[in-house]
Amino acid sequence: MKTENNSSIFPLGNIGSSEWFSGEVHVQGLVAPEQMENLYNVGQVTFSPGGRTRWHTHPIGQVLLVTEGRGWYQEWEKPAQELIKGSVVAIPKDVSHWHGAAADSQMVHIAISNVKDGSNVTWGSPVTDEEYGAVDH
Amino acid sequence: MKTENNSSIFPLGNIGSSEWFSGEVHVQGLVAPEQMENLYNVGQVTFSPGGRTRWHTHPIGQVLLVTEGRGWYQEWEKPAQELIKGSVVAIPKDVSHWHGAAADSQMVHIAISNVKDGSNVTWGSPVTDEEYGAVDH
Repeated sequence: MKTENNSSIFPLGNIGSSEWFSGEVHVQGLVAPEQMENLYNVGQVTFSPGGRTRWHTHPIGQVLLVTEGRGWYQEWEKPAQELIKGSVVAIPKDVSHWHGAAADSQMVHIAISNVKDGSNVTWGSPVTDEEYGAVDH
Repeated sequence: MKTENNSSIFPLGNIGSSEWFSGEVHVQGLVAPEQMENLYNVGQVTFSPGGRTRWHTHPIGQVLLVTEGRGWYQEWEKPAQELIKGSVVAIPKDVSHWHGAAADSQMVHIAISNVKDGSNVTWGSPVTDEEYGAVDH
């Protein structure tokens, strides 16, 4: 028996900045670095259908735990990999990548990263409709 | 409308060692340190009712994200705090503590820690029935 569960574990949070995301994306911070050794950064990200990050890198990598829905993870010049509830992604440091929802589904993931020299991410250019369409078509 | 959701996000995993836990506790590793900069350690822990960790400490702290059920978190010589779905605990480094399920409910949490000098945890003595009963009674 399959049941739909639309109640996320954590609150939806606030709309993420368009300097980081395309489409409608909500971010709920869970643990801020200043709470924890200036190191841990943990949050929940909810991507509406078609919503996605920009291309970006992490100085000490990032872990994604997909808790709901369906979407995509893609590293620069590599094939995209489909994400579903229960998917785990271990993103290497300094590798340019994006993640986001499928065109016809939301996706919710927990994102875990570590801070280096005060930052846990470097943002790049948006994932264009052409780049996204080449993955989700 | 409230619905019961008994399908965890990740697999149940294997029975945790009695050197770490009391009662029935399952552990599913999600990210091992050797996958990620020898740093990140991420897993899901499922405590059956009454199941709990030993007293223990973490050298760089730990984050707990409660995804199902109800239970307890207690630091040494402090009052216990109740955990429910959506609870977030930021555990300071080197502080002795335990976590586990309520006597009448399972609890599932994601545990996130960082590794220092090859270890992310130091295990101590079991939480006795007296200590547990003083919290959950």
